[in-house]
This record gives sequence, structure tokens and C-alpha cells, in this order.
Amino acid sequence: MGCLVIKNGGAAALPEWKALFARLMPGLEVREWNDPALDPAQVTYALVWKPDPGRLAKMVNLKAILSAAVGVDHITSDPDWPKHVPLIRMGGEEPALQMADYVLWAVLSILRDAATWRVGQQDKVWTRQAGPARMSSEMHVGVMGLGSLGGPVATRLVQAGFRVSGWARHAKTLEGVTCYTGTEGLNDFLQACDTLVCLLPETPETIGMVTYEKLARLRRPAGLINVARGALVVEADLQRALDDGTLHMAVLDVFDAEPLPAASPLWAHPRVLITPHAAAESSRPARAEYVASVIQALEQGRDVPLRYDPVKGY
Amino acid sequence: MGCLVIKNGGAAALPEWKALFARLMPGLEVREWNDPALDPAQVTYALVWKPDPGRLAKMVNLKAILSAAVGVDHITSDPDWPKHVPLIRMGGEEPALQMADYVLWAVLSILRDAATWRVGQQDKVWTRQAGPARMSSEMHVGVMGLGSLGGPVATRLVQAGFRVSGWARHAKTLEGVTCYTGTEGLNDFLQACDTLVCLLPETPETIGMVTYEKLARLRRPAGLINVARGALVVEADLQRALDDGTLHMAVLDVFDAEPLPAASPLWAHPRVLITPHAAAESSRPARAEYVASVIQALEQGRDVPLRYDPVKGY
Repeated sequence: MGCLVIKNGGAAALPEWKALFARLMPGLEVREWNDPALDPAQVTYALVWKPDPGRLAKMVNLKAILSAAVGVDHITSDPDWPKHVPLIRMGGEEPALQMADYVLWAVLSILRDAATWRVGQQDKVWTRQAGPARMSSEMHVGVMGLGSLGGPVATRLVQAGFRVSGWARHAKTLEGVTCYTGTEGLNDFLQACDTLVCLLPETPETIGMVTYEKLARLRRPAGLINVARGALVVEADLQRALDDGTLHMAVLDVFDAEPLPAASPLWAHPRVLITPHAAAESSRPARAEYVASVIQALEQGRDVPLRYDPVKGY
Repeated sequence: MGCLVIKNGGAAALPEWKALFARLMPGLEVREWNDPALDPAQVTYALVWKPDPGRLAKMVNLKAILSAAVGVDHITSDPDWPKHVPLIRMGGEEPALQMADYVLWAVLSILRDAATWRVGQQDKVWTRQAGPARMSSEMHVGVMGLGSLGGPVATRLVQAGFRVSGWARHAKTLEGVTCYTGTEGLNDFLQACDTLVCLLPETPETIGMVTYEKLARLRRPAGLINVARGALVVEADLQRALDDGTLHMAVLDVFDAEPLPAASPLWAHPRVLITPHAAAESSRPARAEYVASVIQALEQGRDVPLRYDPVKGY
């Protein structure tokens, strides 16, 4: 099966990766991305997060590229990435479970207006909210994107007692979730929900998709949770919607620039909770296990489910 | 049915209370606690939050005292409260649903170490947590107190995918919850859990119950959620447990002194989330509906469920 090169966690992570794959696939050679002795031609598999542009193209014997994340935009943004090589998204149970935990936390943070508590604690001021607390049964959450993450997220929210709608490009069926489809269903979807969870992949079609005008269609008080990619939300529109009250609160895990620069006004916004791209990041053991299962499938000529589709763009 | 005096929300809330009871119980006279024209002898029912000591004793024709909160310690702490008069705790579906939403948020905040995110946002620093995120299935939550709030809270946590144990003075049965009972079961209960939810009533037996030594019995990383009364937790012990790492994180909604004084070191503790006694406060319509149902039952000579029991102390 050859040689796996890893760009994920840096040189410090190599011993752990080596130990994991030694157990899972004893025949596999594991090398670090910046290993000076690495011959690009020997690499057969690459597990990467934000690979330096042009480097993958030099690996002429690549059998597959494995994304260290569920999204692949950090690879396809390289104009020279080898498009004839299968590109596989990160899968497995762990990122979906973590994402569901995070989104449930974010939805409850919006339900209970936790940004007010955050500001109160920062200022050491006992700040009681006006009016009684909303209850989960009164909230209607809309999950945009019902793929390997969005599907489990929507199901988890239903189990936790929320009303849930979903939107996807193509028709989906999920128990307890009202599903809307395509451009023609988007308006009805937005008008049905008060809290929007953004879980779409970053593609040329989704970049800049969440505009002020779309946020304004949500029921009030409106909330936004972005756990996909910063580029999906027009950041100036988000600011405007927060400032004029169109959007009551936002929980943001992803941004145009990461790490979010200290100068960003989002940090101090009184109705924003910020987390450092932490919603779902599976452990190295879980990633290694998934990667090993993919390599095994490919070596045996079997198909793998989370393969990049150039038509869909993810 | 006579006259209901209300100490809950002040004079500003009186018009809303009057409108609510005019619809629910047209024959009932509604007066404000500090109404100078009020004759104590005319009062037949009192709905109160922290009544001035000695005032209830002067209401010699009281048929029942209704607590505006689920706890009654704010009434029984008055040495002169009329102990021969039925004292009824606040009930209804709303406070239990709100409490369950809050505790689910607090448990997820501990699961994902949200205090680190809070400090990062305050300092405008992108602070990635060390190691992969824990998942809800790996957490074991212990709910202390399985009454009108603790029971629904434990059930909600089970539905949301957590492992849940419960502890109560007397044996209880709750689907999906491992229940421990009495002093003899307390140690096993604490040793089984990593995150402790304090939902016991404040009684002479429960004051100071959560000590350093009890927190040290929890599995690590240990978390504490106090949504009952500040007096249940020895605040100095809590500080010590947080400082030496015995306790990894705490979400605190109640305190010895409320509002929490600006000088309290808890406000700035990097592993504490503070909320302003906001976990469960039902709306005035919901409270009025519950109070009307209690008055109706008492007038018809029926029993009411949430009656204070001097033997239990709540």
C-alpha cells in the first residue's frame, strides 16, 4: 500500500500518527509533509489540512488524497491540486457526534441569550434578562446542509426537543425534520425558522450565500450559528444584521480569517459568542482509523462514500 | 375566595397580575404587598418572593401561602412565618422545562470547556483547547435531587444522549437513570459521576452539603452545576477545588449573596461560568395559572401536590 504523507499536526504529531498506523496498517510507511528526505514520487496517500499549493501535484503516484477535515475547500483552493486523484472527505462517527454536541450547545446559548451572561460576567454585573426565558419547544431551528454532519445535527436537535427544519440542494428525508429543497425551497425554509445553522460545504455556489437579505427573512428573535466556513456568510452583512437587531444573536466558530484577528469587532460584540474553529475536530485515533478504512477499501478496489464530486463541488 | 396579596415583581407588575387573575379568577381581589391601604386581616392568599419577616404573621386570615419560586427557603427563613398555614411551592410545567434547558446548556458548556472560550473571547485571543473534544456519550452526569425539577432534568439529559445518575433522600425510579438513595448511597453516586448537578432544596440538612471532600470524589475532569441555592455549596471549598484542579469547571447560577458582589473572585475565575439566578423563572402568565389552580383546589377542599412538609423541610 506504500507511503502515507501527513500534513496534520506538524512534526510534533508524527510519533502519534506512526504509532496509530503501525497498529492499524503495519505495512504502511508514514512520513511527515515537511520531511526533507521525502521523495514526492514515493507518496501513494496524503492526509492533509491546508496543503501548500503545488505540493500535491508533485506527488505523481498518489492513489488518493484524504482531507483531515470534513470540508475539502482547503485542498481544492490549490489551483494545481491533482484533480484526477480521488479526494476523500474526513468521515467516521466522531466528527458528527462532536458537531451535534456543539450545535446543541450553540442553539441553547441562543435560546437562553447566553451572550448577555457573557457580557455580565466580563463586566462583573448581575444582568437579568428582560422577560421570561424562551423554551426549546418555542424555538424553530433550520439546518442548512444535511450531509454527513448536518443530518446527525438535525436528528440530535429533534431528540433534544427542538422543532427542526432542514435545507439541502437535493431532496432528503430525515425523521422529525421538515425538509426543503433547492433554490425554490430556500425562501420558505428561512421564513419557517428563527435560528439558522450553517453547515454547507464551501463551494463556488455557497460562498457569500448568507446575506443580510437572507438573515432578514428569519423569524424574530433570529439567531445564526456558523459552523461551516467563514466565507459562506458575508461578514459585513452579519455585522449590519447584528447591529440593527435583524439578528438577535450569533454563535460563530468559523471566520474569513482564522485565527480571527484581535482587531475584529466581532470579538467584543455584545450579542456574539466566538469559538476558535472548535466545533468538530476528531481525535487522531479516530482520524487514523477512518483513513485506514479508506486506504483498505481503495486497495481492495471498493468504493468509498465521502468522495469529492466535481459537479457538486464537495 | 377573598383577597390575594402579591410580593413578586413590585408595584410595576401589579397591572399584569390584575389582568391575569381577572381572566383566571374574576372573583379574586388582587392587591400589592406594599399597598398602604391594605388591611392584613383581609388577605386570604399570599403569593410571595422573599417576604419581609413578620409580615405574613399579621395576615391572620391566610388560607395559604404560595411561593413565587420552586424553593420555599426564602419564606421559612422568616422565624415568624405562620407555620399552621399551608405553604405551596411553585409548580407547573414551565419552570421544569426551563430548568432542563438550562442544565442541558450547562452540561454541554462543561463538556466542551466553554469557560476557555469565554476567556479567549474576553482577551480576543484564539485559544484552542488541548486535546480532542469529549463527547456527550463519555460524560456521566449526576443529578442531586430528583423532585419537581431534578426529575425532568435527569430525563432530559438521558434523551440528549448523556449517561445519567440521580441521588435522592428516598428511593426514586426514573427511566434511563441509575438512582442512588440516602446517606449510604451518596458516596457511590459521587464516585460514578464526573459532573454534579445540584438541585436539592435548601433545608437545614442540605446547607453546606457540597464540600471539598465531596467534590474530590467525582471522576475527573469534574464539573459542578449549582442551580439550587448558594448555601448548599461551601463557597470556600468550591474555590479551593477550582484552584487546585480537583474541579475542572463550574457553572453557577446561585450564590451565598445575590446579586453576586462585584468583589467576588468567582466572576473572573477562568474556569467558571456565571449566570444571574436565571436558570428557571416561569413567566407571570404561567405562575398566575398555577396559583389560580392551587386556590381553586384549596377552595374546593382538594389536596395540592407541592405542599411544604415540615419533616422534609421543603
